[in-house]
Amino acid sequence: MKTRDKILLSSLELFNERGERNITTNHIAAHLAISPGNLYYHFRNKSDIIYEIFLEYEKLVDYYLDIPEDRPLTLEDMTFYLESVFDGLWSYRFFHRDLEYLLDGDSRLRQDYRDFTNRCLDAISRIFEKLAEAGIIEPQPEELRSAMSLNVWLVITNWMAFLKTAHAGEAAVTLTLTELKQGIYQVLTLEIPYLSPAYRDRVMALREKYRPHLPDAAASDGAFDARVGLIKK
Amino acid sequence: MKTRDKILLSSLELFNERGERNITTNHIAAHLAISPGNLYYHFRNKSDIIYEIFLEYEKLVDYYLDIPEDRPLTLEDMTFYLESVFDGLWSYRFFHRDLEYLLDGDSRLRQDYRDFTNRCLDAISRIFEKLAEAGIIEPQPEELRSAMSLNVWLVITNWMAFLKTAHAGEAAVTLTLTELKQGIYQVLTLEIPYLSPAYRDRVMALREKYRPHLPDAAASDGAFDARVGLIKK
Repeated sequence: MKTRDKILLSSLELFNERGERNITTNHIAAHLAISPGNLYYHFRNKSDIIYEIFLEYEKLVDYYLDIPEDRPLTLEDMTFYLESVFDGLWSYRFFHRDLEYLLDGDSRLRQDYRDFTNRCLDAISRIFEKLAEAGIIEPQPEELRSAMSLNVWLVITNWMAFLKTAHAGEAAVTLTLTELKQGIYQVLTLEIPYLSPAYRDRVMALREKYRPHLPDAAASDGAFDARVGLIKK
Repeated sequence: MKTRDKILLSSLELFNERGERNITTNHIAAHLAISPGNLYYHFRNKSDIIYEIFLEYEKLVDYYLDIPEDRPLTLEDMTFYLESVFDGLWSYRFFHRDLEYLLDGDSRLRQDYRDFTNRCLDAISRIFEKLAEAGIIEPQPEELRSAMSLNVWLVITNWMAFLKTAHAGEAAVTLTLTELKQGIYQVLTLEIPYLSPAYRDRVMALREKYRPHLPDAAASDGAFDARVGLIKK
């Protein structure tokens, strides 16, 4: 692997594990056992590294959300989109955590992130449109579909923060990909009222697979379990 | 006003305006033209100030979300709850921005915030229950109501971050209370499929009042306007 790619990979790993705020370019260089000078040969500063990582993230999500126009969508497609979006959130999880500060520090990233969000909102709306064409959900007027898509986006991008703040016990919680994907349960909750009778049972069964459950450490709060519809393992 | 209260008020103002991360106790003391020693007489450190501010926020929201048990809810009640929650978010807007870091740094705050979230989720669920009793929305099974309430919470607590990231133009956007309250449009979008026929038109008219519109600087992106259901002024 090229040094440049190694720097990006290690940076992503360190940002995800310890938070972008706590990692300097010196940490990254030390982690790779290269000199700071070598790192600066490839990237002018940490913002440049973050921007390159964002471009990778963007590429991944754009690839996942490439919606086929030559055939109807299936439930399997819908599942794939949901799984992929949460996989992407997981792989680049430092990003949404520190988003506002990252954007404040880099106007190029700010503009790109805005465009990225708009593409994602478009894709979500297009998915709803195609799910309606396929008879999986009832058709919605465009205005409602847009507002619904934005709610899907708000739920998806806030789920991790919810887990890390409201859901956590005494200690800072170590999040798992499984817990993160339980956000799919919340996204599918948004779809429930729009499901076609023919697909309702199948989507409800799919949703059930993602039903959130608390880690043992926090599971003592039974009232909370009941409240957010959580079950104990 | 007592020095202690002045410190809390100035801290809140500075945190909201410039971000908690950028404000030290020295900034706060300088802003009040008091000595750092005087500040430390009242608060051991910045975490203590933040914790006291949180207690005020919590008290405010608990006060707003005190649901009457001796009478049915009205649409006016629902509007009041929505307006109040967004007023609270506005007055303490630094808090949700930096939530994860604030909680990482203070286990007392972490525990309290978790309890606070759970009370809010309870209150939202109770409001839905009482709106159904009043015939404003159709009754929902408890499990769905819980998941719906959590989605309401996720939308409310993520709306400001959405405005400040995806919605912003080239420059960092200066958010207004009016824009923040447009989040009510998104919350009411969640209720649409559950509205009773008798109340549907009134709630849809209420929702329309909060329809988001972009500030002029960003209004050039027509595709985005259409997508998230925005209109130009």
